[in-house]
Amino acid sequence: MGDFRVHILGCGSALPTMQHYPTAQVVELRDKLFVVDCGEGAQRQLRRQRLDFGRIVGVFISHLHGDHCYGLYGLLSTMGMLGRRRVLPVYGPRGIDKFLAPFIEESRSYLGYDIEVHVVDDRTSSVCYEDRSVTVTTLPLEHRTPCTGYLFREKVTERHIDRASCDFYGVPRSYYTALREGADFTTDEGKVIPCERLTRQGKTPRSYAYCSDTAYLPSLGPLLRDVSLLYHEATFLSDRLARAKETAHSTAEQAARIAQAAGVERLVIGHYSARYIDTQPLLEEAQAIFPETVAADEGMILEL
Amino acid sequence: MGDFRVHILGCGSALPTMQHYPTAQVVELRDKLFVVDCGEGAQRQLRRQRLDFGRIVGVFISHLHGDHCYGLYGLLSTMGMLGRRRVLPVYGPRGIDKFLAPFIEESRSYLGYDIEVHVVDDRTSSVCYEDRSVTVTTLPLEHRTPCTGYLFREKVTERHIDRASCDFYGVPRSYYTALREGADFTTDEGKVIPCERLTRQGKTPRSYAYCSDTAYLPSLGPLLRDVSLLYHEATFLSDRLARAKETAHSTAEQAARIAQAAGVERLVIGHYSARYIDTQPLLEEAQAIFPETVAADEGMILEL
Repeated sequence: MGDFRVHILGCGSALPTMQHYPTAQVVELRDKLFVVDCGEGAQRQLRRQRLDFGRIVGVFISHLHGDHCYGLYGLLSTMGMLGRRRVLPVYGPRGIDKFLAPFIEESRSYLGYDIEVHVVDDRTSSVCYEDRSVTVTTLPLEHRTPCTGYLFREKVTERHIDRASCDFYGVPRSYYTALREGADFTTDEGKVIPCERLTRQGKTPRSYAYCSDTAYLPSLGPLLRDVSLLYHEATFLSDRLARAKETAHSTAEQAARIAQAAGVERLVIGHYSARYIDTQPLLEEAQAIFPETVAADEGMILEL
Repeated sequence: MGDFRVHILGCGSALPTMQHYPTAQVVELRDKLFVVDCGEGAQRQLRRQRLDFGRIVGVFISHLHGDHCYGLYGLLSTMGMLGRRRVLPVYGPRGIDKFLAPFIEESRSYLGYDIEVHVVDDRTSSVCYEDRSVTVTTLPLEHRTPCTGYLFREKVTERHIDRASCDFYGVPRSYYTALREGADFTTDEGKVIPCERLTRQGKTPRSYAYCSDTAYLPSLGPLLRDVSLLYHEATFLSDRLARAKETAHSTAEQAARIAQAAGVERLVIGHYSARYIDTQPLLEEAQAIFPETVAADEGMILEL
């Protein structure tokens, strides 16, 4: 079990304000950083939060509205200047390829690394990224343009060795790796000792779901079942429900209802409309339904 | 004579730092704002400095390196959200059309106003914009990509009416406008009274020259003759002269030499390399040659 945390780089929406940067986050999992959305100023915020550009293994864009992707050209360009050589995969819904094409073409001669564009499925939930420790699954959202959330789920964690029990059955050290991965052990006499008797269960795998931007979408519930932390946009207060519907956004109350229905452990709201200088009313509206809610703010770090 | 001032939105260079934003400025002339370069975060800085997006009459881009133009998509997009309907002209060297094409195409259906792209001549000095009160002239610079500076020059200001003299010669009030513009007056007896006897000269027209990015370019001297304020990039200290040459940038000393040779009134330096956390040494290097130098900083307002 290594580090698993979310860094909020920006949690505002389209109109620039002095309170917030447009949407951008970093999911940190052990030694890897995953950039999730990349509004204008994301690279500045990365630097401010002392996150090492060299640890970025991928970028995940939810949709192509400017407040979620206009920081991408700058970030990609800076990574080149900082000497990146490793391929960088960028994930996003239909249109991400067209959005990146001019940058890729223009920078080909000097960028120093390749960008691998992955157009993900924004209509169904499917795995778009996988490595030894995590899978990333798309979450179909409903917005005015193709839009997808992302679910980061740790893989089942290794089991813990029960030393006393292993010594009792004469399990050699060289077999510990197999045990941790769930294998049973066969003694010299041919007796099978089940893994459960030689190990204890590892920690429950943690998960983080990112849902921005979206209209109220109860069908998300089953996809978000039991996640450790859910980020859900809460652009408006309930008194602007009509405006939320019209713009395909959610209210703080709706975000809380999704969290409640899915039975998530914790909720973090963000993507505040520029009209809210103080986010406390949004937080209170959500907490009235789902108490385990916090309001995102630039620089916030959420440990999983 | 109305207001004429320069607002520094950003004076850093390519690598993001906590000290500076990438390059962007606003030239304010009476009721008009001209955006000069538009690095990432320019729209945030406009808001921070309480500059009204609705007063922007044009955008002037020096070249297409990201630290001078990656804030443009966000600014253009926000101007649409704020309800702009008036055509916006954007000036820039070869490539500006290609850079803006994807944005213009993508946003055509919802932006709400037209963007008029003007590819300026980056090889010679020529007028690219003109209105009742100002002309903007390109300044050919030498960089690794087509690059142009801009010279904002007030038009010759109106002459001041000498009331006593006008009354003496019986000049009717209705003729004052013609007098202010320099016309002579003919009396009922057919005698010509020269304008100089009826008016006094108006104030000397003010001018602002923007030169970023460029290698040391002494040929700029005659183009900058007597300007009121010169912004000249000073990316490095003289101890990195080789690096300045290699990257087609200038040292603080070189910026000062250009100011000195052109006989400008004042110099403001900027576009500091990320290696300089403190800009004082750059300022001192320039002041040793040209004492009337200041070092740009975010939020600085330079009155002309």
